[in-house]
Amino acid sequence: MGHPHPYAPAELHLPGFEPLQLSQGQILVPYLGTSVFVVLAVWLISGKCGGRLSKTDRWLMCWWAFTGLTHIIIEGTFVFTPNFFSKQSPTYFDEVWKEYSKGDSRYVARDPATVTVEGITAVLEGPASLLAVYAIASRKSYSHILQFTVCLGQLYGCLVYFITAYLDGFNFWASQFYFWAYFIGANSSWIVIPILIATRSWKKICATFQPEKVKTK
Amino acid sequence: MGHPHPYAPAELHLPGFEPLQLSQGQILVPYLGTSVFVVLAVWLISGKCGGRLSKTDRWLMCWWAFTGLTHIIIEGTFVFTPNFFSKQSPTYFDEVWKEYSKGDSRYVARDPATVTVEGITAVLEGPASLLAVYAIASRKSYSHILQFTVCLGQLYGCLVYFITAYLDGFNFWASQFYFWAYFIGANSSWIVIPILIATRSWKKICATFQPEKVKTK
Repeated sequence: MGHPHPYAPAELHLPGFEPLQLSQGQILVPYLGTSVFVVLAVWLISGKCGGRLSKTDRWLMCWWAFTGLTHIIIEGTFVFTPNFFSKQSPTYFDEVWKEYSKGDSRYVARDPATVTVEGITAVLEGPASLLAVYAIASRKSYSHILQFTVCLGQLYGCLVYFITAYLDGFNFWASQFYFWAYFIGANSSWIVIPILIATRSWKKICATFQPEKVKTK
Repeated sequence: MGHPHPYAPAELHLPGFEPLQLSQGQILVPYLGTSVFVVLAVWLISGKCGGRLSKTDRWLMCWWAFTGLTHIIIEGTFVFTPNFFSKQSPTYFDEVWKEYSKGDSRYVARDPATVTVEGITAVLEGPASLLAVYAIASRKSYSHILQFTVCLGQLYGCLVYFITAYLDGFNFWASQFYFWAYFIGANSSWIVIPILIATRSWKKICATFQPEKVKTK
């Protein structure tokens, strides 16, 4: 019936579980390395746009490229690979989710609320994030409202993710380390940064509706 | 151990269940009657604003007042009354949720994803909807982005609501009638109307960023 698993709670039944083959470092380094490469590439390419883009816009493009690719590739793999924990020849992405499940075993247990939030994130917010890179670069009129939309989706997803964890018993991490490093730490960027960007876009949008600017009654 | 319950699946265990005391009509008529009263009152009061408000704005105020009060009073009662199905002296609102649970027993079973979506709706979107009534009436610069925000929240909530139902087995209604009348019918307004309002606000917001784009061409 498979190997014993490292997840909490211990009574979680995972038929056919295949132990992790990669170490934490072998999982984190490629992800962080690729992310740094993506951010650097977007930063450099956006700098070639003839000075039209502000530094803030270029940083935003880096963020949207990074988060969009993470949503589509990393989270998309989780959504569409229900058997990732029992595959005989696991891919790198299967190993990512076996490692992350130490911080939240609802992933390996395929909790419906977690799969739902990840599904919405991968299928809707991922492509929308990449569209935001293009929208900022080409100064589209929908740039701010699009960024605001994706931020709200990310924040709503985090709310559902954390509140359902609380209501379901709040006992899904293998240790305090994984609670802080994965469940809290790995998700914190997707709370802090969307709040900052959503606040900025909200203000920019409100500014265009100030009475002296708009006479379109 | 309480009375037999009318919900699906039949094996659902509801210790201390108290049978419904109100009929479907006794539940629906007060809700619909109060809603018509609220809509009429907001329509008439908003008409006294010296002709400053368009008919669309007045209809939107009616919707936001109706949906805000529904979120806070009806859905708020569900969120903060975990024992509503077993109360010896149930209130009208307890009866509402015992009736609605015929269309989705996850309410009476206190499914975490359902409670989470209803909690976010009642605590955040309810007050924000009432703020939208005020924002439209006083032509605040944040009127459109606020309405857009609440609509997105309602739509994200509906997505989570329906996708988790699908992933959890899609067998929570007592009959086809309750599936169509409650699970689909009662929720459809909160899909169609938020899509319409969000689309309108998106266009209005994009339109204000249009001149900037024309200038850069």
